[in-house]
Amino acid sequence: MTDKKYVYSFGGNLTEGDGSMKNLLGGKGANLAEMAKLGLPVPPGFTVTTECCVDYFANGNRLPAGVEAQVAAALKLVEEAMGQQFGSATNPLLVSCRSGARSSMPGMMETVLNVGLSSATIPGLIAKTGNERFVYDAYRRLIMMYSDVVMEKAEGIEPAEGKAIRRQLDGIMEELKERKGYSADTDLTVDDLKALCAEFKVRIRETLGREFPDDAMAQLWGGIGAVLKSWNGKKAVSYRRIEGIPDDWGTAVNVQSMVFGNMGDTSATGVAFTRDPATGDNKFYGEWLINAQGEDVVAGTRTPNPLNKATCNEQNKHLPSMEELYPDLYAQLFDIRNKLEAHYHDMLDIEFTIQERKLFMLQCRVGKRTGTAALNMAMDMLAEGLIDEKTAVMRVAPGQLDELLHPILDPKAEKQAVLIAKGLPAGPGGAVGRIVFNSAAAVEAARRGENVIMAREETNPEDVEGMRAATGILTARGGMTSHAALVCRGWGKCCIVGAGSLEIDETAGTLKVGGRCYTDQDVLSLNGFRGYVYEGAVQTMDSSENPRLQAFMALVDKFRRLGVRANADTPEDAGVARSFGAEGLGLFRTEHMFYGKNSEKPLFYLRKMILSRSTQERIAALKQLEPFVKKDVKNTLTAMNGLPVTFRLLDPPLHEFVPSEESKRRELAAELGIDIAEIARRAEALHETNPMMGHRGVRLGITYPEVSEMQMRAILEAAAELITSGTPCKPEIMIPVTCDAREIKFQKTILARVAAEVAAAFKLPAIEYKVGTMIEIPRAALLAGELAAEAEFFSFGTNDLTQMTFGFSRDDIGGFLPDYLERKIIDADPFQTIDVNGVGKLIEFAVENGRAVRPGLKIGICGEQGGEARSVAFCHRCGLDYVSCSPFRVPIARLAAAQAAIAAEK
Amino acid sequence: MTDKKYVYSFGGNLTEGDGSMKNLLGGKGANLAEMAKLGLPVPPGFTVTTECCVDYFANGNRLPAGVEAQVAAALKLVEEAMGQQFGSATNPLLVSCRSGARSSMPGMMETVLNVGLSSATIPGLIAKTGNERFVYDAYRRLIMMYSDVVMEKAEGIEPAEGKAIRRQLDGIMEELKERKGYSADTDLTVDDLKALCAEFKVRIRETLGREFPDDAMAQLWGGIGAVLKSWNGKKAVSYRRIEGIPDDWGTAVNVQSMVFGNMGDTSATGVAFTRDPATGDNKFYGEWLINAQGEDVVAGTRTPNPLNKATCNEQNKHLPSMEELYPDLYAQLFDIRNKLEAHYHDMLDIEFTIQERKLFMLQCRVGKRTGTAALNMAMDMLAEGLIDEKTAVMRVAPGQLDELLHPILDPKAEKQAVLIAKGLPAGPGGAVGRIVFNSAAAVEAARRGENVIMAREETNPEDVEGMRAATGILTARGGMTSHAALVCRGWGKCCIVGAGSLEIDETAGTLKVGGRCYTDQDVLSLNGFRGYVYEGAVQTMDSSENPRLQAFMALVDKFRRLGVRANADTPEDAGVARSFGAEGLGLFRTEHMFYGKNSEKPLFYLRKMILSRSTQERIAALKQLEPFVKKDVKNTLTAMNGLPVTFRLLDPPLHEFVPSEESKRRELAAELGIDIAEIARRAEALHETNPMMGHRGVRLGITYPEVSEMQMRAILEAAAELITSGTPCKPEIMIPVTCDAREIKFQKTILARVAAEVAAAFKLPAIEYKVGTMIEIPRAALLAGELAAEAEFFSFGTNDLTQMTFGFSRDDIGGFLPDYLERKIIDADPFQTIDVNGVGKLIEFAVENGRAVRPGLKIGICGEQGGEARSVAFCHRCGLDYVSCSPFRVPIARLAAAQAAIAAEK
Repeated sequence: MTDKKYVYSFGGNLTEGDGSMKNLLGGKGANLAEMAKLGLPVPPGFTVTTECCVDYFANGNRLPAGVEAQVAAALKLVEEAMGQQFGSATNPLLVSCRSGARSSMPGMMETVLNVGLSSATIPGLIAKTGNERFVYDAYRRLIMMYSDVVMEKAEGIEPAEGKAIRRQLDGIMEELKERKGYSADTDLTVDDLKALCAEFKVRIRETLGREFPDDAMAQLWGGIGAVLKSWNGKKAVSYRRIEGIPDDWGTAVNVQSMVFGNMGDTSATGVAFTRDPATGDNKFYGEWLINAQGEDVVAGTRTPNPLNKATCNEQNKHLPSMEELYPDLYAQLFDIRNKLEAHYHDMLDIEFTIQERKLFMLQCRVGKRTGTAALNMAMDMLAEGLIDEKTAVMRVAPGQLDELLHPILDPKAEKQAVLIAKGLPAGPGGAVGRIVFNSAAAVEAARRGENVIMAREETNPEDVEGMRAATGILTARGGMTSHAALVCRGWGKCCIVGAGSLEIDETAGTLKVGGRCYTDQDVLSLNGFRGYVYEGAVQTMDSSENPRLQAFMALVDKFRRLGVRANADTPEDAGVARSFGAEGLGLFRTEHMFYGKNSEKPLFYLRKMILSRSTQERIAALKQLEPFVKKDVKNTLTAMNGLPVTFRLLDPPLHEFVPSEESKRRELAAELGIDIAEIARRAEALHETNPMMGHRGVRLGITYPEVSEMQMRAILEAAAELITSGTPCKPEIMIPVTCDAREIKFQKTILARVAAEVAAAFKLPAIEYKVGTMIEIPRAALLAGELAAEAEFFSFGTNDLTQMTFGFSRDDIGGFLPDYLERKIIDADPFQTIDVNGVGKLIEFAVENGRAVRPGLKIGICGEQGGEARSVAFCHRCGLDYVSCSPFRVPIARLAAAQAAIAAEK
Repeated sequence: MTDKKYVYSFGGNLTEGDGSMKNLLGGKGANLAEMAKLGLPVPPGFTVTTECCVDYFANGNRLPAGVEAQVAAALKLVEEAMGQQFGSATNPLLVSCRSGARSSMPGMMETVLNVGLSSATIPGLIAKTGNERFVYDAYRRLIMMYSDVVMEKAEGIEPAEGKAIRRQLDGIMEELKERKGYSADTDLTVDDLKALCAEFKVRIRETLGREFPDDAMAQLWGGIGAVLKSWNGKKAVSYRRIEGIPDDWGTAVNVQSMVFGNMGDTSATGVAFTRDPATGDNKFYGEWLINAQGEDVVAGTRTPNPLNKATCNEQNKHLPSMEELYPDLYAQLFDIRNKLEAHYHDMLDIEFTIQERKLFMLQCRVGKRTGTAALNMAMDMLAEGLIDEKTAVMRVAPGQLDELLHPILDPKAEKQAVLIAKGLPAGPGGAVGRIVFNSAAAVEAARRGENVIMAREETNPEDVEGMRAATGILTARGGMTSHAALVCRGWGKCCIVGAGSLEIDETAGTLKVGGRCYTDQDVLSLNGFRGYVYEGAVQTMDSSENPRLQAFMALVDKFRRLGVRANADTPEDAGVARSFGAEGLGLFRTEHMFYGKNSEKPLFYLRKMILSRSTQERIAALKQLEPFVKKDVKNTLTAMNGLPVTFRLLDPPLHEFVPSEESKRRELAAELGIDIAEIARRAEALHETNPMMGHRGVRLGITYPEVSEMQMRAILEAAAELITSGTPCKPEIMIPVTCDAREIKFQKTILARVAAEVAAAFKLPAIEYKVGTMIEIPRAALLAGELAAEAEFFSFGTNDLTQMTFGFSRDDIGGFLPDYLERKIIDADPFQTIDVNGVGKLIEFAVENGRAVRPGLKIGICGEQGGEARSVAFCHRCGLDYVSCSPFRVPIARLAAAQAAIAAEK
C-alpha cells in the first residue's frame, strides 16, 4: 500500500500545489501556493491536506500512516529554504500552525503561532535577534495560545464558567500589570515576561494536570492535532450548520515559517482588501499595525493605522499610513494587489507582515463583501473587462440582494448601540420605532405617520392589521415559520421572532429584559438580518433605487429560463410585485382580504356564511360577500395589466375566521336570527384536532359547492368587466389541497357552468381562463398523471407539501426541529429550503408524470421556498416553468434562476 | 355503425346467454339462461343488458339506439313461445320487469309485475282464465306497483311525509276494507277491486298529474325505464357504497312472461335454499305460500308454509308443507335442487311459482349464507367431493369469519334468563343492547359506541343504515327470506324475524309482549341461532374453539404465503392473539399500559417524566417508570413464548397524558416540588396545533434520548431475564414516526450501548434483538432505500401513512369524508381499505427500494387495514412478509392471505 500524499510544500520553487487545489489544500493553502507560484514573497511552509483531516477522524482521531514522515521531509525543505533549523539551539526556525478549510470559516477554527520556542531554542533566538524582550513576548504568546488551543480545547476539556485556562492566564497578566501600574502589554519588561511565563506554566500544570511541552516537535504535533480537531469544535460545527458547509470536507493545516511583525518599529502586520468590501469602490483598502503580530489586528485592542489615504476615517486619520511611512513597501504591496486582482479577477482579502522592512504575504483569498459592494464590484469589473457577463451575474449571492431592497440599520451606528436581546432574523432590513403592544395601537400610530415596533408574545391572524401598520415586529416566541415570520417575510417587513429572553406582557404594556423594563414610551431598533434588538433609535439608511441594481437585474434576466411570479394578498401587493419584476402572480390568496384594513364588512359576511346551517342561509351570505371578492379580484387583475394572475380558491379551515369576541358573536347571532349559544355551538362544531389536515381547501368546495361557485363567479365577472372595458387580463383559477383528480373534475363542472352564465350575461363569446391545481398533498404528487388530465397547470405548494411529507406541523416544529438540526438528523430546515431528497422526489415524480399525460403542462411552485436560492436552483433543474414568491423576494428569485441556468451550462 | 346487441332471449331453445355472462346479463339474467339451458322450466323472456344501462346513463338517461327494435324482436319470440300476444284483446301476454345486477342487491332496485293489463286486455284475460277476481286483483297490484315505481320514484318525485302514492293507495284500500269490515285482502270482491282500481286512477291523476297508462307497450317501456333508473336510486347507491359495488356496473332488466302463483289453491309461489343458509346443514330448506304472488312472500305479511319437514319450526309447523300437499311437484323441485347443486357446485337460492299445478323456475342464484353456514357447507362439500380444497378456502368470505368469532349468549346464563318471545333465527350470534325503534336512533347510539337492538314491525331498505349500526335486529313480522333476514344474514349480524307475539309501535316507541311494555329505556338480549328474545342483559361468551373452524383454518394456512401477526396492547391481548393463530406480534404499543386498569402508578411516573423540566428530573422519573415497562414487556414475551414481538417505542404526543384534573395536577406539583400554576404552564407548553404532525414518536427520542434509553433498557433487561431463565424470546424494537435514516442511526447508537451494558450485567455474550422502523410518514417511504440501510425490518403504519398521504386528519374527516363518498370523489374510506392508487404507490415504492438495498428486509404492515381482506390481498401482491392486525381479525387476515395466494395463481 502506497501512502497517500498528505503534505504539499509551498514557497518559492518548493511550491507543489496551486490555487485550483482548494478541495485538497483548503482555501488558505491553495492560495499560498498560488501566490508563491506568482512569485510573491510567501514565507515557505507546507500544507497538510484536508484528506488527512478526513482520514484522521475516520481513523478514530489518529493521524493516518505516512503523515509523520511526509511532515518531517517537508519541514526539512523549509529549514533549507530559511537556512534555519526547527528546534535548533543556535539558529532556530519558528512556525505557525493554521487551519484552512475549502471555504473560509473566519475565527471558527484554531491557530497556534511561534511554535518551536523552548528552553532549548530561546537562547539561540535571543542571540540571533539580540532582542530578549521580543523573544519572551513571543514565548508568553505561545504559552497562552497553546495551552488554550492544544492543551484544553483540543482535549475536549470543558472548564467551569470563568475557569478556562486562557481566562486564567489573562487574569494573571492583568493582575501583574495592575500591580505594576502598567497600562499596555508593551510596558511589560523582560523580567516581567519571564516571571509571567514561569507562573503560566505552574497554573497550566495545576489546572490541566500536564506540563507545557518544552520540545519543538512535540509542540508542532500538538499544534497540527489541535487544528485538525478544531474542525469538529462546537463553534465550527454550528458555523457549518448555518452556512451549509458539509461536515465531511475537513480542514487543511498550514505550517509556515514565522515572520514577525513585532520585531520593532520597522516591523508591522496588516490586512487589506483589494477594493472596498463595504461599498465596492475600486480603492485599495486596508489597515496595519506597527510592531504587532496578526492577532493584535484581529483582536481590535489597538486602533490600526490606515493603509493609505483612501482608508482614512474618523478613528484612524491621526495615525500615519503605510503609504506615507513606507512608500517603497506600499508601492510593492500595491503592485501585488494589482497582480492579484488581474490574476484572480476578483476582489481579494490579503494578509501581510513586514519583518524589519521586508514584506511577506501570509494569506490571500476572495474577500467577503456586502451586497452593495458585490453589486458594484460586479458591474465595475464587467465594465473594466475583468469579468464577463455570466461571471458578473454569479458574483452577487441571491441573499445579498435582500439588503439592497430594504432600509437597514447604519452599520456604524449599530456598533455603538446597546444590544438588549437576540432572536431569529425572520424578516429583513432594519426598523426603528416606538414600542406598541397591540394591533389597534399600531394602526393608530401609523395613521399619525409614526413608526412603531409591534411587540407581542407571538402574533396571530387578528394582529395582521397592526403588523401591516408597524415598521417592525418583535416576538418573544415562535420560530422561523411562525405566523409573524411567515407574514413578515411575505411582506419583506423587518421582523425578529423567538427573542426568548424578552418577557412581553401585552396587558400591562411592558417588555422586560435583563432587569430593564420598557413601555410604550420607549423606542427600540431592530436588525432583521441578524435578529438583534437595540435600545433606542439607531440611525437607518436606505439603499434602494440604485440604477446599478436595475442594470444588474437586466443582465440577470438575460440568462434565466425560469419565470418568476409573486405571491400576493392584495392589489397593493400586486403593484409592489410588478415593480420588482414579477411576471405575474403565481398565488393570489383571496382569503387575505378578510384580514386587512377595510376587512370588517367582508369578514362579517364570511363569518355569516361560515356559521350558516342551511344551504339557503349560506347562499344568502355568499351573495353579500361576492361584491367584495369581485372588487379585490378586479383591482388585482388591473394592477397586473394583462399578466397572468393565479387566484387560489378558499384555502384555510373555516374555524380560523370564527370570532371569539362576545360582541362580534352577538352581532352574528342577530344577523342569523339565532341566539349566541347557538353561535358558540356552531363554532365549536368547526373545531378540529388537526386543522392542517382537516376540512379546508377544495374539501370546502366539495361539501359547499356554493362557496366555490361564489368565488368563481366573482373572478369571472371581474374578468368579464375588464374585457368589456378593454383591459387585458389573464385569470387562472387554482384549486387548493387537492388529493384526487375527481375533486378537480367536480369543481370544473361548476366552473364551466358559471363561465357560460357569466359569458352570456356579458354577451361575450367566452371568457378565457385557465384552471389548475395546487400540488401540496403527497397523494396529489403521486397521482399527478391523473390530475394532469384535468388540470391545465400545477403549482407546488411546498409549504404544505413539506408538512405532509415530513409529518411536520409547521406550528409545532419548535419542540424538535432545533434538536434535529443540532444533532444533524436533518441538514436544513425544510421550510426554508426544499428537501430535495424527500419532497423533491415527489416534485420530480409529479413533473414527470404530469407532463407525460399533458405535455404542455405549465408547472410552478408557490411555497415560500420559491424565493430561496437553492430551492430555485432545484426548480430550474426539475424543468419547472416558474417560481412564485413574496414580492420582495422576486429579484432574489430572478437572480437565483439566472445563476441556476448559468451553473447548468457548465 | 352496427348496433350493439342489447337484448338476449331465454327460455327453452330460445336461450342465447348462459351462466357465465353475469357481467352482461346480470346475475338473474345469466342464471335464468343457465337454468333454461339445463332444461328447467323457465318462463320465456329476455334480458336487456347491463351495457344498455351504462349507455342509458351515459346517454343522458335515454335508451341507446337499437334497443327498441331488439326488444320488439325478442318480445315476438316470447309471444310465439307462449302462444300469446302482448296487448292482445283475446289472448294477452303479461310480463314482469325485474332488475338484475352482476351481484345481488336484494330489495334495492325495482320490480313491476303484471305489465300488459289494460282496458284492452282485461276482458280477454277474464275470458281465458274465467277468473274475473284474479284479473282485477292483478290489475290493482299493477296499478299500485306501477304508480309507485314508474310514475313516482323513477321520475325523481319526492313526496311529502306520508304522501307517497303507494301510501295513499294503501290507505284507500285499507279504508275500504275497514268500511266493509274485511280482515284480509282476499275478502275483497270483484266489485270492490273494480271500484278500487277506478279510485286509484283518480288519485294518481290528482297526485302525480298524469294518467295511469292504459297501453301495454307504454307500460313495458315505463317498467324497463324505471328498473334502469332504480340503479341510481338512493337506496341502491347507499347499498353499493356499503357493499363496495362499483357504480359503473349497471343493472340488467329481465322481462319475463308472467306465471301466477295466485290463480287459486292449485297455484303457489315459493323461495328455497338448496341447503340451510343459517346452519349450512345439507337440508333442502324453503318456504311457500299458496295462492300468492312472489311479493307476498318477500313482504312477510303472511307467515309462509314450510317447504318440507326439515323446514318446520315453531311458527309454521301447523301449516301444510309442499312435501305433504303436492308430493309430485315437491319431488320435481327436489330433483331440480339436486341438478342445480351438481351443476353449480354450490348452495343456491331459488324462486319458483306453481301456476295451476305446473312448476316454473323464476330465479336461481348462489345463496347468501351466514358465516357458520359458509364454513359448514365448504367443509361438507369438500368432504362430498363437490369442491376441492382451494375452492373450499375461497367459499368463506373473510368478513364472514367475523361472526364465527363473535360472542354468543352464554348458554348457562341463557337458561336463567326471562324468555319473552320467539321468532325465526335469521342472523347468527348473540346480541345484547338497549331497544331503539328507528334507524336514526341506532346510528346515533352506535356513534356513541352503545350497543342497541333495533326493533321494527318489519324492516325495509330505508332502514339499512340503522341495521348496520345496531348490534342486533328484531322484527315482529317477516320470514326467513324477508328483508331483515336477507340483509342480516349477508352481514353475519344477529337477527330475529317474525316474532309475531310482539306488538311494536315505532311511533310510540313501545314494544309490548305478554302484558309488558318495553321502551327505549330497556335492554333485550337475542339468541340469533335459536330465535329467542330475552328481557334484560344476558351474559355473552366467545364462540371460538369450533373444531370445524380449526380444520378450515388449517386448510387456509396450507395455501397462504403471507405471515399473520397481531397488534396488541397488553400481555392479555398477546394471549388472545396466539389463540387466534397469530405468528407473532407485529405491533406492541408499550404506551397503552398507561391507559388500562392498574395504570395509576405508571401513569403517574409518566406524567412526572413529561412535566419534568430538566434532564435530571426526567431521568429520575424514567427510573421509577422502567420497572413497569419491563414487567409488561416480560409478560408479553412470555405469552408469545418465542414468537417474535415488535415493541414500538413511545409514539403519541406527550400532552395526551397530561392530566386535566386539579387533584392529579396538585399531586404532580408536590412530587416535582413546583406549584400548580407551573404545572399548568408546562402542560400549556406541550399543547400543539396539529398534534398528529407534532412532537411524537422518534422525535421524542431525539429530543429526549433518555426516554428511548429507558424503553430500550426495559425491553432488553426483560429479554435478558427470560434468556437467563431459559425462556425463548425474540424482541424486535421498532422506531415510530421516522422520516430520515439518521433518526434510526441515532437511536441505534443508544440501543447498541444499552444492549452491551445489559449483556454485561447479565453476563450474556449478547442479547439478540432486531431493530426496525415504522414507515408511516411519506418521506420514510420515499427514502426507503436509505432507511433500509439502517433498519432490519419495515412495518407500514398505514393509519398514519394514509393520514399524511391524503392530508386527512382521521379525527376530522367527519366534516367531509361522507361528502367525498357521496359525490364519488373517492371510492372507499381509505382508513378501512388501503388506497392502492396513492398510499399503495408509496408502499410499492418503499418495498422495491428497501429490498434493493437490503435484500432480506422483512416487511409488514401494522395499520388497521392489515385485517381487511382487500388490503391483505394488496399486501400479498406487494410481496410483504406479514400483516399484523387486531387479535380478533387474525383469522380473517389468515383467510384473506390464503385467498389472495389462490387468486394470484390464476
